[in-house]
Amino acid sequence: MKFHAGVDQILKEISTVLERLRSIDIEPVVEQLVKAERIYVAGGGRSGLMARAFAMRLMQLGLVTYVVGETTTPAIGARDVLLVCSASGETQVTVLVSRVAKDIGARVIAITANRDSPIAKIADTTLVLDAPHKGAPGEGTEGTRSVQYAGSLFEQSLLILTDAMALEVARALGKSDTELRQRHANLE
Amino acid sequence: MKFHAGVDQILKEISTVLERLRSIDIEPVVEQLVKAERIYVAGGGRSGLMARAFAMRLMQLGLVTYVVGETTTPAIGARDVLLVCSASGETQVTVLVSRVAKDIGARVIAITANRDSPIAKIADTTLVLDAPHKGAPGEGTEGTRSVQYAGSLFEQSLLILTDAMALEVARALGKSDTELRQRHANLE
Amino acid sequence: MKFHAGVDQILKEISTVLERLRSIDIEPVVEQLVKAERIYVAGGGRSGLMARAFAMRLMQLGLVTYVVGETTTPAIGARDVLLVCSASGETQVTVLVSRVAKDIGARVIAITANRDSPIAKIADTTLVLDAPHKGAPGEGTEGTRSVQYAGSLFEQSLLILTDAMALEVARALGKSDTELRQRHANLE
Amino acid sequence: MKFHAGVDQILKEISTVLERLRSIDIEPVVEQLVKAERIYVAGGGRSGLMARAFAMRLMQLGLVTYVVGETTTPAIGARDVLLVCSASGETQVTVLVSRVAKDIGARVIAITANRDSPIAKIADTTLVLDAPHKGAPGEGTEGTRSVQYAGSLFEQSLLILTDAMALEVARALGKSDTELRQRHANLE
Repeated sequence: MKFHAGVDQILKEISTVLERLRSIDIEPVVEQLVKAERIYVAGGGRSGLMARAFAMRLMQLGLVTYVVGETTTPAIGARDVLLVCSASGETQVTVLVSRVAKDIGARVIAITANRDSPIAKIADTTLVLDAPHKGAPGEGTEGTRSVQYAGSLFEQSLLILTDAMALEVARALGKSDTELRQRHANLE
Repeated sequence: MKFHAGVDQILKEISTVLERLRSIDIEPVVEQLVKAERIYVAGGGRSGLMARAFAMRLMQLGLVTYVVGETTTPAIGARDVLLVCSASGETQVTVLVSRVAKDIGARVIAITANRDSPIAKIADTTLVLDAPHKGAPGEGTEGTRSVQYAGSLFEQSLLILTDAMALEVARALGKSDTELRQRHANLE
Repeated sequence: MKFHAGVDQILKEISTVLERLRSIDIEPVVEQLVKAERIYVAGGGRSGLMARAFAMRLMQLGLVTYVVGETTTPAIGARDVLLVCSASGETQVTVLVSRVAKDIGARVIAITANRDSPIAKIADTTLVLDAPHKGAPGEGTEGTRSVQYAGSLFEQSLLILTDAMALEVARALGKSDTELRQRHANLE
Repeated sequence: MKFHAGVDQILKEISTVLERLRSIDIEPVVEQLVKAERIYVAGGGRSGLMARAFAMRLMQLGLVTYVVGETTTPAIGARDVLLVCSASGETQVTVLVSRVAKDIGARVIAITANRDSPIAKIADTTLVLDAPHKGAPGEGTEGTRSVQYAGSLFEQSLLILTDAMALEVARALGKSDTELRQRHANLE
C-alpha cells in the first residue's frame, strides 16, 4: 500500500518536472550530441551515475563518448561537447570541469535544477529540470514540490530525460536495436 | 512533441512494471536491508549504475554499504546481505558473485526481469521487474511491452523501485532529510 | 632506519623478479600492443589498478585503450588485444573475461605469477612475473622470495614492467613527451 | 637488452627519490594513519590509482579507509585523515578536496613532488618525493633526473613508499598476513 503510493507519487513528480521542458529546447541538444566529434559527460554523486548511464547508451549508439575522470578519457578539445549534470549547479568539481572545457573551446551543455547556477552561466546550452536541490530543498526554484530526499527527483528526471533523448538520438542516427546490441559490452 | 510522447510512454511503461510488484514482496526486503550488518550491491552495466545509486542513498541513511568491485570493499561475510541487480539474471560476473556470497552464508536478494534466471535461483529473495531483457527483447517474460532499447525499462524501474524502497528504509530507521545530508559526500 | 631497509628490500625483490624476464619475451608483446586495433586491459584488485595505470599511459601514447568494466568500454572484437593481469591467474572474473575475449577471436596477453594458471592456458602470450601469489604465498612458483604481503611484489613488478614497456611503445611509435602531454586528461 | 636497461634505470631513479626521505618524516605519518578514525585517500590520474592501491591495503589491514569520489564514501569529519597524492601539487580537483577537508578540521597529509605547491601549503604534514612533475619536467625541484615520461617516477615512488609504509602500519597494528587475507575482497 505505502509502497505503491510512493511509486505513484514519484512518477507524478517526474512527470511534472519533464512537462515543463519544451521540445524546442531538447531538439538542439540532440543535434549537438549527434554532431559532436566526441561527447564527454560529467557529474558528481547520483547525478554522475545517471550521466554515466546516458554515456553508456550513447556509446552503444555508436557515438564516441567518455566519462570525465575514468581511466582512459583523453583531453577534451574544441570540437567536443561536454554534458555536465548537477542539480544545484554549483558542485565545485563540476563547475571547475565546465570552466576548463569552455576555455578550451568545447561546447558545454548543462542539465541542472538551478537556472541561475554557475554551471548554467558557463554553459552554451542549459536544460532546467525544476526539482528541489541543495540550495532549494523541498521545492524546486520554479515551484515543483517533492516528498523525496533532495536530489532524488532531479536524478530520476535526469535518467528519464536522457533515455528519451537517447530515443531521439537513435532516430537521428537511424540505428536499430540490433546494432546497439553489437556494441554492448561483452566482457562481463 | 515527439519528446513528450516519448516521456509519457516511458513513465507509463515504468508504472506497468511496478504495479505488478506486491507490497508484501517489498516489505521483507526493506526489513532485511535494515537488519543487515553490511549491505553489498552488485550489477553490471546500467543496472550496476542504478544499484550504485541505491547504495549511495543507503550509506546516506546510515547503513554500512559497499559496492562490489570498488577499491575498499572488504570481504563479504555470513551476516551481510548482497543485493544483486540484473535484467537477464544471467550476466556471468553477476552470477559468479551471487554464488560466492551464497556459499559464504550471506543473504542474497536478486532484482531481475527473469524469474527463471540463475541469479533468481541462487537468491534467497527475488523481486521480479517484468521488463524486456537480453533473453526476451521487446516484451517481458510476463507480457510487459516496451518501445525502448532492451534494458532501459528494467533500469528505470530499478531506480524508481529502489528510491521508493529508500523512502521505506528511511521511515523504518526514523531518519530525517537533515540527517541524510550530514552523511552526503562533502569532498566534491 | 626500518623504513629505508624496507625500501631497499622491496627494490631488490622487484629487480630479482624482472631480471628473470627475457627481452625476447617482451618484444613481441610490445609489437602486438602497437599493432592492435584497440587494447583492452583487465585485472582485479591492486593488479587491476596497475593495469589501469598502463592503460592510461597507452592512451596518452595515442593507442585506443579501454579498461574492462568502465562505463563506455565497447564490445571487444577479433582484431583487438586483451591484456589481463592476475598474480594467481585464477581470479574467476579475470578467467571469465579472458575466455570470452579468446572465443571472440581477440588476442589475449596474460601477465601472471603462475605459469600453470587458467589465464596462462587461455592466453596466446604469457609473461610470468615470478612473485608469490595466493596459491604460493611467501615464495614464487619458481623460487623468488618476498617479505611483503602476498601480492605486493607482483603488483610492484607489474607497474615497473609496464612502465618499461611503455618506454618501448613510445620508441616504436616515435612519440615525444610533448605529444603525450597533449592527450593527458585536462578535465581534472 | 634495451628492456633490462630500462628496468635498471627505473629502479635506480626510484631508489634516488626514496633515499631523500627521512625515517623521522615517515614515522609520524604512519602514526597518524594508525590513529585516525577513518582514512580518506585522494589523487588524480595515475597518482590516484596508486593512492587507491594504498587504500586497498589499509582496508585489508583493518583500517576504515575510503577513496574520495567512490560511491559509498561518506562525508569526511574532524577526526579523519585525508591523504592526498599529487606530483605537481596543483591539480585543481585535488587542491579543492584538500581545502574542504582542512576547513572541516580533518588532518591533511600530502605526498607531492613540489614542496611549494598549494596542497603542500594546505597540508598539516607533507612528504616530498623529489621527482619531475608538470611544473618541472625532466628534473625534480631538488635535482632528481628521470628519463621517463613526467609523472612516472613520482607514481612508481609513491607505490613503493606507500607499500613500505604499509609494512610499518602492519607492524604497528601487529597484523599477520593471514588476517589481511581474511579481509581481501572475495567477490571477484
